Formats: sequence, C-alpha cells, structure tokens
Amino acid sequence: MKLYDGGRAPNPRRVRIFLAEKGIQFPAGQIEQIDLGKLQQRSDAYTAINPMQRVPALLLDDGTVIAESIAICRYFEAVRPDPPLFGRGAVESALIEMWNRRAELHLLFPVASVFQHLHPAMKVMISPQVAEWGEANKPRVFEFLKFLDGELKGRPYLAGDAYSIADITALVAVDFMRVSKLSVPEDFTNVRRWHQAVSTRASAAA
Amino acid sequence: MKLYDGGRAPNPRRVRIFLAEKGIQFPAGQIEQIDLGKLQQRSDAYTAINPMQRVPALLLDDGTVIAESIAICRYFEAVRPDPPLFGRGAVESALIEMWNRRAELHLLFPVASVFQHLHPAMKVMISPQVAEWGEANKPRVFEFLKFLDGELKGRPYLAGDAYSIADITALVAVDFMRVSKLSVPEDFTNVRRWHQAVSTRASAAA
Repeated sequence: MKLYDGGRAPNPRRVRIFLAEKGIQFPAGQIEQIDLGKLQQRSDAYTAINPMQRVPALLLDDGTVIAESIAICRYFEAVRPDPPLFGRGAVESALIEMWNRRAELHLLFPVASVFQHLHPAMKVMISPQVAEWGEANKPRVFEFLKFLDGELKGRPYLAGDAYSIADITALVAVDFMRVSKLSVPEDFTNVRRWHQAVSTRASAAA
Repeated sequence: MKLYDGGRAPNPRRVRIFLAEKGIQFPAGQIEQIDLGKLQQRSDAYTAINPMQRVPALLLDDGTVIAESIAICRYFEAVRPDPPLFGRGAVESALIEMWNRRAELHLLFPVASVFQHLHPAMKVMISPQVAEWGEANKPRVFEFLKFLDGELKGRPYLAGDAYSIADITALVAVDFMRVSKLSVPEDFTNVRRWHQAVSTRASAAA
C-alpha cells in the first residue's frame, strides 16, 4: 500500500488528519510526496496513478488506485471502523454526510477558489484564472461561517456531539483561509471555540 | 416523512432516480414541490427546513432534516440496502465514492456552472453571474467526457460492472448539458453507449 501525499494542500491534509484520528501510521517508505510546486502531479508517472492529476491517491497492493480524499477516508473507515468518523446508523451517517458536504461546498471550495483564482502563484496551475470568480467567493465564505456560528451555539461539533469527517473538512478549510488571505471574524465566537477545540487535538498537527 | 422536491433541477432528479432504483415510492401527499422559478427555496418556510435554501431536503417524522442529495441517498441506502448503489465492502464502496465525486467535480458542477453563469434566466438566482467563469467551465466538461470515454471502453458503468450512484450523477449531468447548451460529441462512442443504457432504465424517467 502506498499513499501519494501533497504537503500543505488542503485535501492531502484531510486524509492525514483522518488517518491520525484512526491511529493509522504509514511507514515512511509507503508515503510518496508529490511536489505540487514543481507540478509533479502532472508528470507521466503520477498521471498513470491518477489521471485527474490531483493528490492524494492511495495505491493498494493489488494495483487498485483510490483517488479523491473522501473515498480514501471511506476505505479506511471500512477497514478500521473505530472511532467512527462517518457516523453509525442511517440518520447519523446521513447528517455527517450532509455536514461534510456543506463544509465542502460552502467553505472549503470557496476558500480554495479565492486562493486559486486570485493568488499569483496559482497562475501556472489554474487556467484560466478568473479574478472576478475569486472575489465572488469571498462573501460566500463569511456567509457560511456566520450560519455555522449560529449552529455551533448549540453543539460542540459540526454534525452533533461527536467529532467527524465534517469537522476535519471544516478545520482544513478554516486553516486554509490564511493562505487565501481571509480570517474568521472576532465575533464568530462559536466558530472560534470549535476551531480551538479541533486544533488542539493531536491529529491537527498532521 | 416528507420530501421537498424541485422539478427539473439536477439534484432533485438524482434523488428521484435513486429512489426509483430502490423501488421506493413516496405517496403524493409526502412530496412537496418547491418552485425554483418562483424562488420558493428562499421563502421563510423553506429556509426553516434548509437554511442553505437548496433542494432537495428530506424531513423525517421526528423533525430531523437531511439536506444534500447524496446525504438523502445514503439515508435510503442504509434503510433499504438492496440493490446496493453505494457498493459493498471497503474497495468497491471507495471506488464508487471516487467515481461519484469525479462525476460531480468534473462533470455535474462544471455543467451546472455553465448554466448558472451564462444563462440570462439565472441572473436572479446567481449573484454575481461571472460569464468568464461560465465559459471557463465549458472545456472542463469535454475534457472529462473524453477521459470518461476511454474509461468506459473497458466496462459498462462508471465504477465497474454494476450500476451505482456514480452513474446517476453522470446521467443527470449529461442530460443537463442540453440546458447548458452543450452536447456529447459524436465520436465519444463509449459515453454515448453508456448514456443510452442508463437512459433506458425505468428510473431515468424520474
């Protein structure tokens, strides 16, 4: 088994935090760093692994490749169910799926779009950069954080009383705001309390 | 239980096709149509159901609301596992998750972005419309369809030998191309064969 990792980018970090929460450690020899700064994800060797040219990807011993962060996480959830990070039972699992998708669609993707379409360093990677689209995503980030702040008034984690994949997605998104030159407003006290709590878990260092 | 549906929009259709494949029928009294043309998804009544102001949403008898199409589908997968549409076992489930996400990120979302950012009728709903972003998504649709055409040379469905949620997402995306004024090129014969096959299932009428 081999994990193709990608340094500080948000998606590889989602998987690393997930693995840390599961207590799964990859030996160094089973992790390969794909240097996004050097566009190694577009090399012929890596394109053969993931034709979408994105990280992370997981290569199983039989040659099967699992790409897409959440697909990789689901694989490990199935082989190591404890602690459950996608929930248990029909309702809890559905609510965690809902909150993970809300955190992606309304937070992680907009935060990433601000970076991808406005940062000069992304010019080589994102073609075409559409500055107007980058700007359009800024208010979306704050609208969702405001909504989330109201939700987190009544519970510790995004999907309820237990830490889940939805918290991992939201943590990675909030931390990536710095790179996108955005920050959580001071008065979103519930988001800040939640962020403090999830950031002090050992997994956040992953 | 009540399903908030949304007519011809792609996401409500994903859930309807999923339910049809599962053989689940909602009595007419348990379905409420939210008229997107009249912006009913922004009414106070519906915002109380789903603050994201999107359809579909599922209201359970205890008052729990499950929003996000795939979260609703996962709920029904858990309560009625046959036929499996999210796969069984760690590897199959992960590959279906991967292909469903590829179909969303590289097909459904780009097709929807072309419509949302270029169609005059969407001006009231998408603020701001960014025409340049709409145009930027057109080549992404064809790049993915080309890749998918190569993949479908070797297997009948997106994720393997069995029809899955990934096929539902891709079917809905391809059918929505018409609204976005795009069409599948004639020479993508494998995509066309697959589209014909999934379109002739009874569920496609949903």
